[in-house]
Amino acid sequence: MSRTESDAPGTPDRRAVTALSFLADPGEPALGALLRSAGPAEVLEALSAGERQSEMLAGAHPAVPGLMRAVQRWRSRLGLQPTPARLAAWQQSGLRLVLPGDEEWPVQLDDLGDTRPLLLWLRGSADLRLACVSSVSMVGARAATGYGQHVGLEMAAVLAERGVGIVSGGAFGIDTSAHRGALAAGGLTVGVLAGGLNHGYPLGHGELFTAIAAQGTLVSECPPDQPPTRPGFLIRNRIIAALSRGTVVVEAALRSGALNTARHARELCRPVMAVPGPVTSEQSAGCHELLRDYGAMCVTCARDILDHIQPLGAGSSAGPRNGPATPRDALDPVATAVLEQVPVRGGRGPASIAVRAGVDLDTALRCLGMMAADGFVERCGLGWRATRLDGPQNAKILPDFGQDP
Amino acid sequence: MSRTESDAPGTPDRRAVTALSFLADPGEPALGALLRSAGPAEVLEALSAGERQSEMLAGAHPAVPGLMRAVQRWRSRLGLQPTPARLAAWQQSGLRLVLPGDEEWPVQLDDLGDTRPLLLWLRGSADLRLACVSSVSMVGARAATGYGQHVGLEMAAVLAERGVGIVSGGAFGIDTSAHRGALAAGGLTVGVLAGGLNHGYPLGHGELFTAIAAQGTLVSECPPDQPPTRPGFLIRNRIIAALSRGTVVVEAALRSGALNTARHARELCRPVMAVPGPVTSEQSAGCHELLRDYGAMCVTCARDILDHIQPLGAGSSAGPRNGPATPRDALDPVATAVLEQVPVRGGRGPASIAVRAGVDLDTALRCLGMMAADGFVERCGLGWRATRLDGPQNAKILPDFGQDP
Repeated sequence: MSRTESDAPGTPDRRAVTALSFLADPGEPALGALLRSAGPAEVLEALSAGERQSEMLAGAHPAVPGLMRAVQRWRSRLGLQPTPARLAAWQQSGLRLVLPGDEEWPVQLDDLGDTRPLLLWLRGSADLRLACVSSVSMVGARAATGYGQHVGLEMAAVLAERGVGIVSGGAFGIDTSAHRGALAAGGLTVGVLAGGLNHGYPLGHGELFTAIAAQGTLVSECPPDQPPTRPGFLIRNRIIAALSRGTVVVEAALRSGALNTARHARELCRPVMAVPGPVTSEQSAGCHELLRDYGAMCVTCARDILDHIQPLGAGSSAGPRNGPATPRDALDPVATAVLEQVPVRGGRGPASIAVRAGVDLDTALRCLGMMAADGFVERCGLGWRATRLDGPQNAKILPDFGQDP
Repeated sequence: MSRTESDAPGTPDRRAVTALSFLADPGEPALGALLRSAGPAEVLEALSAGERQSEMLAGAHPAVPGLMRAVQRWRSRLGLQPTPARLAAWQQSGLRLVLPGDEEWPVQLDDLGDTRPLLLWLRGSADLRLACVSSVSMVGARAATGYGQHVGLEMAAVLAERGVGIVSGGAFGIDTSAHRGALAAGGLTVGVLAGGLNHGYPLGHGELFTAIAAQGTLVSECPPDQPPTRPGFLIRNRIIAALSRGTVVVEAALRSGALNTARHARELCRPVMAVPGPVTSEQSAGCHELLRDYGAMCVTCARDILDHIQPLGAGSSAGPRNGPATPRDALDPVATAVLEQVPVRGGRGPASIAVRAGVDLDTALRCLGMMAADGFVERCGLGWRATRLDGPQNAKILPDFGQDP
């Protein structure tokens, strides 16, 4: 709750942010950039005061690209601001408004920089921030095959059972399997919609959305009554990618919107994972493209996904990895030689570790696997790194996302 | 033709290498290491002379691990050496013997170091070295699914059509699909067997082996009458990996022998490629393991494979990669001399081209490879022929392997 724009409910800044969310388009970077140096109440006041004041505001921030035209557009929508009565009615209908700085605000959205949503409308029983602390985005083809639906449902259910929230877009196909898998397992799921929450899209998903709200949360950055637009789906995808610890593409054709979500995840330095499928299936071609050309990680089961979103040894996935604690001096000389080549910061690939330790790759991989089970090393985006503890740990809860600068 | 052990047929060293191949196990590193400092005739002589001389030989090479015991084992098999009459009978039956330094010896096998085969027995119409100049090893599950068989057959056929030789192990399942795909496309295929060539294994593959010999070549490092042994299959895999430019695993369960071939390819710094499949299929789990944990490249079609086995700019796969044409006058004088000996009609073997151009065989092969990449020459049933265009076209052939030091 460190951000001045929403220190307390009902402050002028909070009211101004809410009003601005009805004037600007979702994720409009000009407004995000402007709000870095101007307060929201100041911006709203200038827009409301007239054309000259608005132009002066834009002129005072020449570094923000396209601001002069954006200001005119925002002014043209001043009539769309909701009355306090309307806001109250929405909230009475079960919608709630969450702004940056609120307890329920997921701080990882700050990674979006100037395209961070101004606010989020929520409907549902789950606390959004808690549902996303340890979560995975699972997205894919609307025209999913039986294979993709089966795999998506299964993976989501197993992840949800392990306490991992499932974030998706509420669409037909893979999105539906992801949400339904989490719901079936009694887990948390978050549906990020492209239009306002009173316009649940697609229309046939009323029942799914009701179930998500009952057990998880529906999310939208759009005013509640705003119907979804075609570009809105792509703009929405950045929120799906930013909310979670990583994005899994279960099935996707070559030009699928799911690949757009994967791109956002990559830009946000979140792991991008892809589920392989038959090379004869067009609905897996996008996944294979991610694996082949974009360095996505190949995941074949929930366990693989857990490996990528949490440090090895963190212990949520149970099984032989939570072995007895081995003191570092109990390691054999070969393992010690390998461990000495695993950096604490960054990471190093197994081949490079093997060469530096003077062992062959298979030996290095065997030692790394053993030491991971004992909590000395963990896999990371860059290969392997040593854990900071000089011995095993057994954390059951994932560390929070790092606070954005 | 720089190796002393086989300068010419019938030399003492050549006879000694042949004899030693009946005494040592395939790929035995102790013999490979010993032959780095001792001549094969000298080794055979010591073994034949008696226990004391054999021990003296072993004592003179203390750096070779396990040599003393190996020497005793080799001595115990002295009776297995074939008579000249038997060797002659094998050759009359269509088998041929190829030793390092022979024209048909694939120089890339030298990458195996001390486990390089002492010699190879061949049966078939194709020149082994040429068949492997631009080749891919395609391996996988014996218990292949319909999916794997379909994909293997299709990929092998398309690669073979583009002039890529298909190397595999002649087993049931994916191996069969790979060989059959190449044969169906009228291409070259090489079957590397684990036992002697008079023991074609599996027995049910007599017809396949006949077809491979008719259009390609069967290969074994074992004495012709030696039945296959269980460890022999794994030892054989290093040859499959070393002969080609890269190894593709089409389908493999988690403990499949195909993963052993992939490991050899990795150790040889050849590209390891894996075909993804349904995550619900056990027969793809090994491929996914390669993709997930060993950095294998994800390949979904023949085009992907071509991208990995040929240098960018070599241009077999059409499209923007076909760089600017190289005019014939831009060739260097040696290449021009070689090109002048390549006929437009029919074809000519590389040795014959080399002799006529006044260059050695390696130079001729190097020039032919380069000119093939630039579209001046192409491979044909009779060796090489000049393309009818007086300039480059889409090259169908890859440049040769670099000569081993």
